Amino acid sequence: MESDASSLPRDARIDIDRFLATIERSATIGTGREGGLSRLALGDADKAMRDQFVVWCREAGLAVSVDAVGNIFARRAGREDHLPPVVMGSHLDTQANGGRFDGIVGVLGALEVVRTLNDLGHVTRRPLEIVNWTNEEGARFSPPMTASGCFAGAYTVDWVHARPSDDGPTFGEELRRIGYLGGAPVGGRALDAYLELHIEQGPILDAEKVQVGIVSHALKSHGFLVAFHGETAHTGPWPMERRRNALVAAARLLVSVDDLGWQLAPTGGKATAARLVAWPNKAGTLSDWAEAVCDVRHDDPATAAVMAERVERAIGEAAARAGCTAEVLDRWEWGGRIFDEEMVALTRRHAGGLGYSHRDLPSQAGHDAYFLARVCPTAMIFTPCRNGITHNNKELADRDDLAPGINVLLHSAVERADR
Amino acid sequence: MESDASSLPRDARIDIDRFLATIERSATIGTGREGGLSRLALGDADKAMRDQFVVWCREAGLAVSVDAVGNIFARRAGREDHLPPVVMGSHLDTQANGGRFDGIVGVLGALEVVRTLNDLGHVTRRPLEIVNWTNEEGARFSPPMTASGCFAGAYTVDWVHARPSDDGPTFGEELRRIGYLGGAPVGGRALDAYLELHIEQGPILDAEKVQVGIVSHALKSHGFLVAFHGETAHTGPWPMERRRNALVAAARLLVSVDDLGWQLAPTGGKATAARLVAWPNKAGTLSDWAEAVCDVRHDDPATAAVMAERVERAIGEAAARAGCTAEVLDRWEWGGRIFDEEMVALTRRHAGGLGYSHRDLPSQAGHDAYFLARVCPTAMIFTPCRNGITHNNKELADRDDLAPGINVLLHSAVERADR
Repeated sequence: MESDASSLPRDARIDIDRFLATIERSATIGTGREGGLSRLALGDADKAMRDQFVVWCREAGLAVSVDAVGNIFARRAGREDHLPPVVMGSHLDTQANGGRFDGIVGVLGALEVVRTLNDLGHVTRRPLEIVNWTNEEGARFSPPMTASGCFAGAYTVDWVHARPSDDGPTFGEELRRIGYLGGAPVGGRALDAYLELHIEQGPILDAEKVQVGIVSHALKSHGFLVAFHGETAHTGPWPMERRRNALVAAARLLVSVDDLGWQLAPTGGKATAARLVAWPNKAGTLSDWAEAVCDVRHDDPATAAVMAERVERAIGEAAARAGCTAEVLDRWEWGGRIFDEEMVALTRRHAGGLGYSHRDLPSQAGHDAYFLARVCPTAMIFTPCRNGITHNNKELADRDDLAPGINVLLHSAVERADR
Repeated sequence: MESDASSLPRDARIDIDRFLATIERSATIGTGREGGLSRLALGDADKAMRDQFVVWCREAGLAVSVDAVGNIFARRAGREDHLPPVVMGSHLDTQANGGRFDGIVGVLGALEVVRTLNDLGHVTRRPLEIVNWTNEEGARFSPPMTASGCFAGAYTVDWVHARPSDDGPTFGEELRRIGYLGGAPVGGRALDAYLELHIEQGPILDAEKVQVGIVSHALKSHGFLVAFHGETAHTGPWPMERRRNALVAAARLLVSVDDLGWQLAPTGGKATAARLVAWPNKAGTLSDWAEAVCDVRHDDPATAAVMAERVERAIGEAAARAGCTAEVLDRWEWGGRIFDEEMVALTRRHAGGLGYSHRDLPSQAGHDAYFLARVCPTAMIFTPCRNGITHNNKELADRDDLAPGINVLLHSAVERADR
């Protein structure tokens, strides 16, 4: 029953103009700074984008379902529709100063693959599914990749629903409010494979003028959400030795984290001070509460683990120095050699077969694919992005950057689904 | 025409029960955490308190006027009403986790003085005025003591009106919205004297069981509002050496400021990390903007000046270390030997004459009196507060703490007005 190669004509190509028009339409929903997007997870703009995506999927003849954490699946039946699907996708949410490409090219690229197959009248043996994962960015709810993590069994649905947003309402409340609290169970079903197309979010492909990135592995990353508790007092008379300023504790942690990044920079390590909030955070008063988000990343998992240990120590030291107590509210990690060798080889073979220059490289950002790799054979395909700039309205990828990667996605997915 | 002493009977006393009932009523307007207040300047609760204060003043037969920065003056005519008034007051606004006493005892204590004079049928030679200064706390608009500073000529009305709040609207917009953009000119008129009663906001009087604090001078304080500018980028792939994370710059400044406070703590110096905000301040993205508020204080003005220089150096170093630029948006200073010797002697004499234990001590917080000292003879009277706790809902002063200070205010103001 299995065949060695795709039955798709070797010269089949996606329609880059149609794809770019789709990206253009997406770029009008939740506009941010000039040219960019500010489409935070489960906000009004995310709802509007989801609604548009569902319309496009239905126009393409797909059956849409939504699960209990808001993940949207759009299914194209296979010739043997009982077989587990080949899933393609990424996320439509963005950072507050996000670009218009990021994970969006992974979701809308998958849609373009399906539209191309519709044009060709090609029905794959296994079903195909497009997925939009909820809150990949973590820009409104911590941790990032919440809903793909839940799909992979890392988090329970109740835990995800209880995540607070930076601006008040919970994940579950916002899902309900925007109408994307779906009835489908989260995960717990067999997937044949998962393929995620994404812009590189790094400078390598653009600098080397390589057309397609074959993602070999992922930087190991450890993230922390930490709360500090102190006591309010007057900034004037209160003696230094009696102060319990939670803002100082959080600032000390973030400086230690940044120092750590600089220490490991010679070996490519990074450490990030990402977020700090405090209360009351006012002139005249010491703050009695602060929360900080930080992470460390390194290509070598052992080094990343040492960095994480040093962050843990820094949390205690920062709290003690400021007379506060610390509480690690959340901790996440991802990365390593998680991708499926056969799947990676599949994408590499098609990149070469289609005549594109390509190279293996690690992924440095976090991606939903990291969680999917826990439940099915998974690979990622990177497209170049200009100067590696991302999470910035100046993020840029043009037709020549994008078409090769989407074509590799097309041929890889179809070969996998047809085998 | 001048007499040596007040014509007020030596046994005249304020009605502490009436005063405490007035404080109780105030404590229901803009409630915060248990027992405390959250009555930020020019918010809805501040408006409600102002309205109540104006009603009380009119009930006491006072003529109320409001100036163009929202300062409320309530005037009791003198026998020679053309003479410059003796002014008593402080502020009714609070911090976000404020107590119910703070500057409120200064305004409502002055009201109690007037009510007592009404009961006694005593009309002073010079007019008396009660004043409520706008935004003493600086908890919503920077800098603190904005409107007394404007009254004293330190700031123009236009500049004050343009101050942005932490939550969006400007000082001028909020004045207009709550109906306290008054028609009276700001300052520019002669005052005979200014007397401000305030809780100590420090532990000395309570620890030593002394009933009245005679404020000899003010700690020298330098404050800074600093903005840092960087660039957003992804927290994962972006190399450390290309990062321009404004959150890191602000955190580095605040840690340097806290370190400075510890270095000077052995000589009673303090340095405070008061506020930090950043944008987008999200997991996954480096922030391209951050703002920090900090201040330094020392009893020795020369040392305070050295501390301020070190903050200025730290601003540049923090920005450079994080690849950002820094901009000092605002800078304020106050304190020193600013009070009028004769006025201070007047309050000291009455504290003794009324049989209260008293001692001289410096003021460590900022107060409107610091600006008033620029335009007329000024003194401050402190009442004890439990354990020195303030800017905290646990702030506490009872009848025995408060009555002596208000009686000293009564006799001092009347002697000054009757001379």
